[in-house]
Amino acid sequence: MRQRLSADTYSAGILSGDRVMLSRAITVIESHLPEDRILAGNILKAILPHTGQSFRIGITGVPGVGKSTFIETLGNYVIDRNKKVAVLTIDPSSKKSGGSILADKTRMEKLSRSPGAFIRPSASNSFTGGVARNTRESILLCEAAAYDIIIVETVGVGQSETMVKGMTDFFLLLMLSGAGDELQGIKRGIMEMADAIAINKADGDNMLHAENAAQEYRNALHLFPASASGFQQKVVTCSAKHQTGIDTIWEVLADYQQCIRGNGFFERNRKSQNKDWMHDSIRYALESEFYKSQLIRRKIKTLEKAVEAGTELPLDAAEELLRLFFSKINTTENQSGQ
Amino acid sequence: MRQRLSADTYSAGILSGDRVMLSRAITVIESHLPEDRILAGNILKAILPHTGQSFRIGITGVPGVGKSTFIETLGNYVIDRNKKVAVLTIDPSSKKSGGSILADKTRMEKLSRSPGAFIRPSASNSFTGGVARNTRESILLCEAAAYDIIIVETVGVGQSETMVKGMTDFFLLLMLSGAGDELQGIKRGIMEMADAIAINKADGDNMLHAENAAQEYRNALHLFPASASGFQQKVVTCSAKHQTGIDTIWEVLADYQQCIRGNGFFERNRKSQNKDWMHDSIRYALESEFYKSQLIRRKIKTLEKAVEAGTELPLDAAEELLRLFFSKINTTENQSGQ
Repeated sequence: MRQRLSADTYSAGILSGDRVMLSRAITVIESHLPEDRILAGNILKAILPHTGQSFRIGITGVPGVGKSTFIETLGNYVIDRNKKVAVLTIDPSSKKSGGSILADKTRMEKLSRSPGAFIRPSASNSFTGGVARNTRESILLCEAAAYDIIIVETVGVGQSETMVKGMTDFFLLLMLSGAGDELQGIKRGIMEMADAIAINKADGDNMLHAENAAQEYRNALHLFPASASGFQQKVVTCSAKHQTGIDTIWEVLADYQQCIRGNGFFERNRKSQNKDWMHDSIRYALESEFYKSQLIRRKIKTLEKAVEAGTELPLDAAEELLRLFFSKINTTENQSGQ
Repeated sequence: MRQRLSADTYSAGILSGDRVMLSRAITVIESHLPEDRILAGNILKAILPHTGQSFRIGITGVPGVGKSTFIETLGNYVIDRNKKVAVLTIDPSSKKSGGSILADKTRMEKLSRSPGAFIRPSASNSFTGGVARNTRESILLCEAAAYDIIIVETVGVGQSETMVKGMTDFFLLLMLSGAGDELQGIKRGIMEMADAIAINKADGDNMLHAENAAQEYRNALHLFPASASGFQQKVVTCSAKHQTGIDTIWEVLADYQQCIRGNGFFERNRKSQNKDWMHDSIRYALESEFYKSQLIRRKIKTLEKAVEAGTELPLDAAEELLRLFFSKINTTENQSGQ
């Protein structure tokens, strides 16, 4: 890492909208070094009062659905309306960090050259809990740098969607139409999570297919329970390549915002996301402390096999491990409590 | 509680199919007393080699959908085929334990009198983690008592469905048809969890409505990703009251079993459920140890409010609490490690 600056320098740079400083601050929050974690904490504290003002959009879809082209098109559309857009990408499955940065910038060529845009892939060599933390903190930094729209991009095949749903205001699922392609690789449960579904590549010969698919999905989603947001899921078609349908998506986003700001869901959801973030962090830390403990690691493999085979009760195995882990705490608790 | 017997007496009674002994053993596993937990552990260890042979069915649906009548009808249908059926009901929202036992037995009048049936509501005053543990352990006891079909009944409005899904082989959602009733009270996400949906009260004037609703759901579910089981979700109609459609449901159950035993999902799913049970127990114990700690309880309310209001970073709040909690472990870990 380049030379560290003071937390004040980073935060002043971010607040003035300096993209280089924003980028370097994200590198700090992604670092695992203890001194960087302290620095990251101080930067975040300084910018916290300037956060929360953006509209956060999660976008997911399987590889090949055209996510980058879609985000490039949507991003430029947003910029043409005099708003700033930040794009954070998450791909926990990818091992190549530097490679994907380059790839993203190439894939979003026009957007990446625009002064109103900021594109940043997550350091994808991090563990999942780390990716969640990094992305949540990166959103805050981008908000402090006055980005109006923050897009969090993820691949619709893993566990990252629930995570992204938990840190955004609006969740968009990109799909393809035609001969079974609709379902290719999409994970069960993701469609019910989406606030809107956009059927991409609705162009040329594919136009009719896409319209039909959209109508089928509209009928289908209507049969499902309403979302907690009070917003009825929308299904639209678009062609990111031919830049059609983006205006409709922009309208859906506007309708959605009006709906959730009107009925109080926006505030309520942000509050509960913050609370969940705290409790998720606690759970994550407790579990990693447990599973990385030497005591546990020495025992767990054997027990897990016996549990799978049905020769050991899952609860007995759990209790054996928990006794090992907690014997220490309880010893000290009693000592210090008396 | 009545006088405690030895673990051997309980397990011998259960293995001989004695319903009174089975019932008393479930009372032991539901108890929170430390000596009962030890006794429960010994009973479970003794019967463990005789478990795993039943087919476990989760049934959910909102109040008014006719769950009890449905289970009464299905249960009697099973018994007419010379199989034994156990019914375990979960209703974490209910506070009345004794009352609901009586109500269940009244609601399933014929079934409760059948020598091949065993009906047992969960002690609904337990905490959620407790209900999960009790039900999982009760399933094992019923299996040792040679029940062929075990039905776990839950109310389709809370968080208990994911829990029941995680301990059964087949998950059935009961619904109603007609004028928006389909969605009444059903929680988002539950429909995608179901292996089959049965539209109940398909009788009289309602028959056509029910058939139409079923067809709509069939079309809709077809658009969604396939389940991990490889089984395409089925939608059927029935009238539990008029005892129609139960044969179709029985066929669906048979097809499903053939499918998942053929493709290995049955084994794989049971193994992974066992493993999840172990890890869920660990997570549950870690979190309850954390949240019930005096140190944490003194601090958490204030921090939670600041987090919700956005004046404190969720991660900072989490870290402050974790430091309090872990300072003890780390002290001992270092001492004993050197």
